[in-house]
Amino acid sequence: MALDVTSSALALEGLGPTITVGEILVEIMATTIGKGFLEAQPLIGPFPSGAPAIFIDQVAKLGAKAGIIASVGNDDFGQLNVERLRADGADVSAIAVSQEYPTGSAFVRYAADGSRDFVYNIARSAAGKIKLTEAAKALIGRAGHLHVMGSALSIPAVWPIIEYALHTVKQRRGTVSLDPNMRKELAAGEETGRQFAALIAAADLLLPSGEELFVARPAASESEAVGKLLASGVAEIVVKRGQHGSALYTKNGHIERPAFTVEEVDPTGAGDCFGATYLTCRRLGHSAEKALDYANAAGARNVTRLGPMEGTSTFEELDQFIAATKRK
Amino acid sequence: MALDVTSSALALEGLGPTITVGEILVEIMATTIGKGFLEAQPLIGPFPSGAPAIFIDQVAKLGAKAGIIASVGNDDFGQLNVERLRADGADVSAIAVSQEYPTGSAFVRYAADGSRDFVYNIARSAAGKIKLTEAAKALIGRAGHLHVMGSALSIPAVWPIIEYALHTVKQRRGTVSLDPNMRKELAAGEETGRQFAALIAAADLLLPSGEELFVARPAASESEAVGKLLASGVAEIVVKRGQHGSALYTKNGHIERPAFTVEEVDPTGAGDCFGATYLTCRRLGHSAEKALDYANAAGARNVTRLGPMEGTSTFEELDQFIAATKRK
Repeated sequence: MALDVTSSALALEGLGPTITVGEILVEIMATTIGKGFLEAQPLIGPFPSGAPAIFIDQVAKLGAKAGIIASVGNDDFGQLNVERLRADGADVSAIAVSQEYPTGSAFVRYAADGSRDFVYNIARSAAGKIKLTEAAKALIGRAGHLHVMGSALSIPAVWPIIEYALHTVKQRRGTVSLDPNMRKELAAGEETGRQFAALIAAADLLLPSGEELFVARPAASESEAVGKLLASGVAEIVVKRGQHGSALYTKNGHIERPAFTVEEVDPTGAGDCFGATYLTCRRLGHSAEKALDYANAAGARNVTRLGPMEGTSTFEELDQFIAATKRK
Repeated sequence: MALDVTSSALALEGLGPTITVGEILVEIMATTIGKGFLEAQPLIGPFPSGAPAIFIDQVAKLGAKAGIIASVGNDDFGQLNVERLRADGADVSAIAVSQEYPTGSAFVRYAADGSRDFVYNIARSAAGKIKLTEAAKALIGRAGHLHVMGSALSIPAVWPIIEYALHTVKQRRGTVSLDPNMRKELAAGEETGRQFAALIAAADLLLPSGEELFVARPAASESEAVGKLLASGVAEIVVKRGQHGSALYTKNGHIERPAFTVEEVDPTGAGDCFGATYLTCRRLGHSAEKALDYANAAGARNVTRLGPMEGTSTFEELDQFIAATKRK
């Protein structure tokens, strides 16, 4: 199918950094398969985590300007996260350190059927107390792109910051992307539905997984759901299909790119790395095919590492990975 | 030294259960020696924990009536703790389940020099939000003994409950004990100093470790510190010396009992088991020598198990342990 994939409204990296808002967490992983945390068991962690943090770390790893508005506690878990993001090149100036609340945490355990049990501490952690600080305003004021991670919307304090950033970034003629990224444990209420509608109306790029497409817009089929979203004005819709690759839909047509064949160690963070890489490639002016390939590679490479942020990639690492890895 | 060790103001178990107030936590332990949690590492947990919870579990394991006023989150970590206490025979009717706050947690790692690093989430956890509920009032109303764990005083919400319980239990002619149990991370302010003074004034039994004796009452020597405390009206002072055994001081003299020789796996909880066992033996009418021996055994047996509450003991287990273990 013919599709002009070189031009993109997103291709303005010079305008300023990609920014996001939301939870920075540590993740503690059970190392055995089973249900929940009702008995002592072997664990590994703390790993730097939080979908927005993984996303922004991946943007920074690609050498692009990246910053996050977030809040951590004054503890080892917060320091671990801030130091990782800083080391990987992200702007950490808008990460507040709470003296009152601990760094957020997520315990995760995989069951035999592939499902995951979580024990979260987000709402009553520093992550739940994100504020629109002066440092946050300064970062937003120089941003070129706002990426919204759906998981962050489960934190009530995030929405006013997103609204402020949306307005500011749009005024600067910056762009906006949305990854719905909702989990059952972070269930959406009616208010979140209204927030999603506002974000979709503003978004230049939407990054749903297959199922999330239907959460965003009830429809009978993927193409119907996509059609409605394109008609509403979203320029690019990239559907993440995990091991089945990914597809870009625009009003001019669609393209699909296959996944890479890897041994999965830990799927957490793959979608965040995928989204960060697709967006960053587009902001840097890469073609949609190249962006999809790099994004597929970033997602695939991430699942080969234990820990949600341990497998974020540089372009050099992605080039090596693509050269060495079979496509499905 | 001659000492009447059979009679004790504490020997009134029939009056009602031993109760305590304070933090229920899960403990997550690093399995390697080192400093802090600035990188992902092998861990084991969640173990039921919290000094007051360990204490009350040990009382219940000895077959004595025991209850705790506490608060956990509506999560696996809370359920794990409540089920353990229930299974071991404690009254869990006054453990509130918070819908808002997560169960408290403590990450602990041992350094090569034996010191410990902690990452706590207590103040902003369910444990930090303990309330004087109707169920708590009911438990206090039938209590025969109030044990105060110093660590719990770091939670501001605990003090009004302690004050209420102190008044109620004293009115019923019940008894009171205090384990100062302060850690550097849970540092005492001036207010805590005043609270300790009020508790010492009310206490029939004081259970300090060697150093804590001097925190409680500045003095040049142990005997001077003890002398001042006895003069102020405390009937029994039991000094915990870990691997150096323990000593009971009363106004009529003092006795010392040696520790047991064990391979230490995890020292956390030993002091809590010691205190619970000494107190329970005295409440059940055992002699001070027997109480010290059982208490030394309970502390020693606890350190042979990984996890702070994993080595609480029944009398049968203590008898077997004493028969099988060398004294120092």
